[in-house]
Amino acid sequence: MSKLSEQDIEKKLLRLPDWEYFDNAIHSEFEFENFKDCFSAMSRIAFECEALDHHPNWTNVYNVLTISLSTHSANGVTKKDFELARAIEQIVEPEED
Amino acid sequence: MSKLSEQDIEKKLLRLPDWEYFDNAIHSEFEFENFKDCFSAMSRIAFECEALDHHPNWTNVYNVLTISLSTHSANGVTKKDFELARAIEQIVEPEED
Repeated sequence: MSKLSEQDIEKKLLRLPDWEYFDNAIHSEFEFENFKDCFSAMSRIAFECEALDHHPNWTNVYNVLTISLSTHSANGVTKKDFELARAIEQIVEPEED
Repeated sequence: MSKLSEQDIEKKLLRLPDWEYFDNAIHSEFEFENFKDCFSAMSRIAFECEALDHHPNWTNVYNVLTISLSTHSANGVTKKDFELARAIEQIVEPEED
């Protein structure tokens, strides 16, 4: 798994408007109605993380969830981070059928 | 719910050796075998938070969970934070019968 170039990252981020790149990782913040809704989303994300064998750096304060994704072994952002970011988007803001 | 004095906090922390006081909050860090074990503990803690109606500022990176507790409305540490800290200790490191 190799580190993506900044150009590749910015290109991929065009499809993920809730995310931004800085400090060698991609970041997003999501706000929910309350803690219960936020932690429910975290639980669903946790299962995806295990399935993808890729894990976030994430912080929760009541109804707010802040997520940073990077790939430790590559010392930067890889395809794996985008795979997880897209899975998170599907959980947090599922598209209409 | 009133803010505890630093002296009261330090006294209460004698019974919670995994926790320390700084930056107007009490803090601890717990390490687990892996992400699954860590998130399982987080889920149990989340239920306690809802039951106590008191919520942490917490960060997870793979198998490590960092928790900070303070009471926003009191602008400091209150009894409620110690109540939650003790509940967390029981989940993370349950005492033998």
